[in-house]
Amino acid sequence: MERKKVLIIGGVACGAKTAARLARIAPGCDITILERGEHLSFAGCGFPYFVGDVVKEYKDLVCTPLGIIRDANFFRTVKNITVHTGCLATKIDRQKKCVVTSDSATGSEKTFPYDDLVLATGASSIRPPIPGVDLNHVFTLWTMPDALAMKSALASGSIKSAVIIGAGLIGMEVVEALTERGVKVSVVDFLPTPLPALVGEDFGLRVAKAVKAKGVDFYGGEKVTEIIGEGGVVTSVKTDRRTLDADMVLLAVGIRPNTALAKEAGLELAPNGTLIVDDSLRTSDPSIYAGGDCVISKNLITGKPAWQPMGSTANRQGRVIADNIAGLFTKFPGVLGTGILKLFDLTIGKTGLNEAQAREAGFDPVSIVVEEADRPHFMPGMGGMTIRLVADRPSRRLLGAQIMGTGVVDKRLDSLVSAITCGMTVDLLADSDFAYAPPFSTALDPNTHAANALRNKMDGLVKTYQAKELAERMKQPDPPLLLDVRTPGELDVQGRLPYEFVNIPLGKLRERVNELPKDREIVTFCKISVRGWDAVAAMRSAGYENIALLEGGVMSWPYELK
Amino acid sequence: MERKKVLIIGGVACGAKTAARLARIAPGCDITILERGEHLSFAGCGFPYFVGDVVKEYKDLVCTPLGIIRDANFFRTVKNITVHTGCLATKIDRQKKCVVTSDSATGSEKTFPYDDLVLATGASSIRPPIPGVDLNHVFTLWTMPDALAMKSALASGSIKSAVIIGAGLIGMEVVEALTERGVKVSVVDFLPTPLPALVGEDFGLRVAKAVKAKGVDFYGGEKVTEIIGEGGVVTSVKTDRRTLDADMVLLAVGIRPNTALAKEAGLELAPNGTLIVDDSLRTSDPSIYAGGDCVISKNLITGKPAWQPMGSTANRQGRVIADNIAGLFTKFPGVLGTGILKLFDLTIGKTGLNEAQAREAGFDPVSIVVEEADRPHFMPGMGGMTIRLVADRPSRRLLGAQIMGTGVVDKRLDSLVSAITCGMTVDLLADSDFAYAPPFSTALDPNTHAANALRNKMDGLVKTYQAKELAERMKQPDPPLLLDVRTPGELDVQGRLPYEFVNIPLGKLRERVNELPKDREIVTFCKISVRGWDAVAAMRSAGYENIALLEGGVMSWPYELK
Repeated sequence: MERKKVLIIGGVACGAKTAARLARIAPGCDITILERGEHLSFAGCGFPYFVGDVVKEYKDLVCTPLGIIRDANFFRTVKNITVHTGCLATKIDRQKKCVVTSDSATGSEKTFPYDDLVLATGASSIRPPIPGVDLNHVFTLWTMPDALAMKSALASGSIKSAVIIGAGLIGMEVVEALTERGVKVSVVDFLPTPLPALVGEDFGLRVAKAVKAKGVDFYGGEKVTEIIGEGGVVTSVKTDRRTLDADMVLLAVGIRPNTALAKEAGLELAPNGTLIVDDSLRTSDPSIYAGGDCVISKNLITGKPAWQPMGSTANRQGRVIADNIAGLFTKFPGVLGTGILKLFDLTIGKTGLNEAQAREAGFDPVSIVVEEADRPHFMPGMGGMTIRLVADRPSRRLLGAQIMGTGVVDKRLDSLVSAITCGMTVDLLADSDFAYAPPFSTALDPNTHAANALRNKMDGLVKTYQAKELAERMKQPDPPLLLDVRTPGELDVQGRLPYEFVNIPLGKLRERVNELPKDREIVTFCKISVRGWDAVAAMRSAGYENIALLEGGVMSWPYELK
Repeated sequence: MERKKVLIIGGVACGAKTAARLARIAPGCDITILERGEHLSFAGCGFPYFVGDVVKEYKDLVCTPLGIIRDANFFRTVKNITVHTGCLATKIDRQKKCVVTSDSATGSEKTFPYDDLVLATGASSIRPPIPGVDLNHVFTLWTMPDALAMKSALASGSIKSAVIIGAGLIGMEVVEALTERGVKVSVVDFLPTPLPALVGEDFGLRVAKAVKAKGVDFYGGEKVTEIIGEGGVVTSVKTDRRTLDADMVLLAVGIRPNTALAKEAGLELAPNGTLIVDDSLRTSDPSIYAGGDCVISKNLITGKPAWQPMGSTANRQGRVIADNIAGLFTKFPGVLGTGILKLFDLTIGKTGLNEAQAREAGFDPVSIVVEEADRPHFMPGMGGMTIRLVADRPSRRLLGAQIMGTGVVDKRLDSLVSAITCGMTVDLLADSDFAYAPPFSTALDPNTHAANALRNKMDGLVKTYQAKELAERMKQPDPPLLLDVRTPGELDVQGRLPYEFVNIPLGKLRERVNELPKDREIVTFCKISVRGWDAVAAMRSAGYENIALLEGGVMSWPYELK
């Protein structure tokens, strides 16, 4: 029997996973990986931790949990997979079903035939055309050589200051890594707030404040105009507003898919240059599959194209490709747009759609912002979090969430991933039987509280303002009266909203409620607006009707306090 | 306008929640709580941590996060709720719609009229009729006086040894609390393994080993016959097999619902004595609602009655009751049977159905056991976990899970809570877009791996044995050949299965495969059976067909190793 030849271009995440899965379920295939670099199956998402010295040796990123390096020999002896490293694919001949390669050391050409071809060519980081971008110590952080070069520069001890261009996931992960190593870090992004793909402006402003407290300067809405060097090495970065000292620069402005080869072979590409694949991850050529950073997926909620170049996506897709090659007809259902980041003591993550994306997809979104504790206040290690939960008003279906805080954010995010994947309603979320014991959660989980708060809003039980809405409302004529029901001591510690306000602590409100006018809208709040909600009730029982609540209270207020 | 009188019997979890919610959404109601004890709205789930001195002051369990005691004055001034403590309800007159009470100090009688009555009477711990059960230092841990008495005994310094009777959630939480305080703890249960309501025998055996390593003796399958004392104070506990020193005893054999009042009033009860309620949490009398530990719920998956006396359930039900009293017509959909426990460095939890429950409910369950890391091996703080995932074979719907380990178990459990609540399939779980970054997860989450392993099994890609199945198979004629593909060094460290076996490390298997017989079933495994899966592939490509895998490898083996 002729053995089926499966050729895989790319041996990192999707490629290595495809090969490993295929070797397990279809031992009758000849599997060959062509990898242009030297390293296989490495954990690129670990690079920031490698640079930050949390991970000491690069070998830790390319070995199995038992410490065995996943090199060509490992793939051969353990998995019966042939790997060629330093082997650049230069041409796909779809007629003859073969791939031409060039050896990166010798330049010698070779041709590999295939029955099924898998493109797992990944992506590359973008080097923007800024003057000075080719100076020494101007890095990207995408490949193993990138990571080794950056770690080696840091090890030299000469890096005292760094400028990170781009405040996305990788940029902000490196903010922490460098700061923890004692480097003075500045971040420049042309957008006003950090992590714009992950969270909205309100969360972003709070992230900027949080990194500032760690000594990191964030310059939003600025454009880098030039990278300046001396003796071939970077010394500073010029923006349209200032000049920043920089012994090193990280370019973290984004990535682009590696699809030149596919394009030349005439495979169908999306406008952003990624490969278009069907549910089986087949390209426009039925003998060619593709997965990982070089393909576009679809969003599970909207069904619209969505590019999600993440290691998790790549691994899931590798399995689907292997199954289909093996004749198992597995489908890749899509992605939800989940992302997460550790940034000092904060965890910041999102899944699903934000309000703007939901509106664009034809939903009628409504959202709530709540501040929650991750376990009872009497338990050690309690942390807090801000949850923004988005649902569709008519169907009550959950659409997305953003969460940030010092508490256990990732757990709440992943519960919402399952919930949103299944089309759960906000009502069923509120009634979900999450695991409760004091070391793990409050009696009602933060997600339960968020769902209940959103139901209150959707059901018209309370009118609310989010911080941005209130800030805008305060600029208009006849602004509402602000009623702060915290104790005076809290005001001093936590700060005051930058407007005129009346302060009546909740415990005194029922007896002093008559001090408040009945002919004016009153917006009440406390630290997190739980007492604020009680204040609404107290005023209602005293006959006040025009009352609203500031969502998340002073804790969720992203602007300056006084 | 006449104000609606809402009377609530019980002011702890469900009662206090009902009152607080109602005060917010229906300020026109007169709300009165009758509480037989002195303390309101306390966090009973925190008692083991109070006893263990993780929580120092009992006030921490009855105050708001801001440190304000939730006493009658707090309920009055902040929430406009009237509370009578020390007020025992002795009779419900459904005709006259009133409740008769007796003051616990003076014995004086009082009558409270109601329009709507809420029974949140909770449960009480069972004091089994063992001789000596009334000796001093024989405790239960259910009420605040229980907790205070136990803490005070421990503070005296005279407690060196303790026997805990009952290895359920509370019993095992107290195991940790006492051990951390330096008390020598023995646990006796008439069932063979700990935590029988939470996990199966295999996990239970591992829990017993884990507590043994902390100096705790577990005596399963034993019956306590007598509690022995001297001078009125307990000194030892006799079982049907031994006598154990005991300066104190905790009776943790279960609880029973407080429904004598409801029974006398003629309300409909379930066979276990809990109140039967409809989806709106109305009892058989439409003017009487009930929630919390005294009612029976229904299981979300089976629709069958399920008693889940947990603080989380009580809080969720309180909200539903309040909504219905306020005319919002909210339904309580049911419970999933979720439970979780911290036990030293282990977290142990479950949700949904186990195989036996699933079979009883008419499903055709199939389960998998996997060992997973909670984050990449190169990240600090990595922990492991064992997941047992249960699905229905024909529909592929997820039915339940049990998880235990030193890793972040609660997160995976809560993701499964959402998934199972929505009827997610194992396939969609495998493709769920969980949040990935190295501090939080492996590129494929443990749940993803578990789902994939279960799919492999369901789809017939690999035959597997769970430990118990293999142990039984090894007793039968013509047992399979065991192939251990770990390195010899691992065998010494991790132990060997207590059978004859062949040891060929995976890296050598392809060259040495011919040493293995082709006419005999071979069961392969490694530490966690990931290399075992590669070994299956290696043997298959060498023409071996009768091969199986031990689920979870040596790590999941709950019996003795040699």
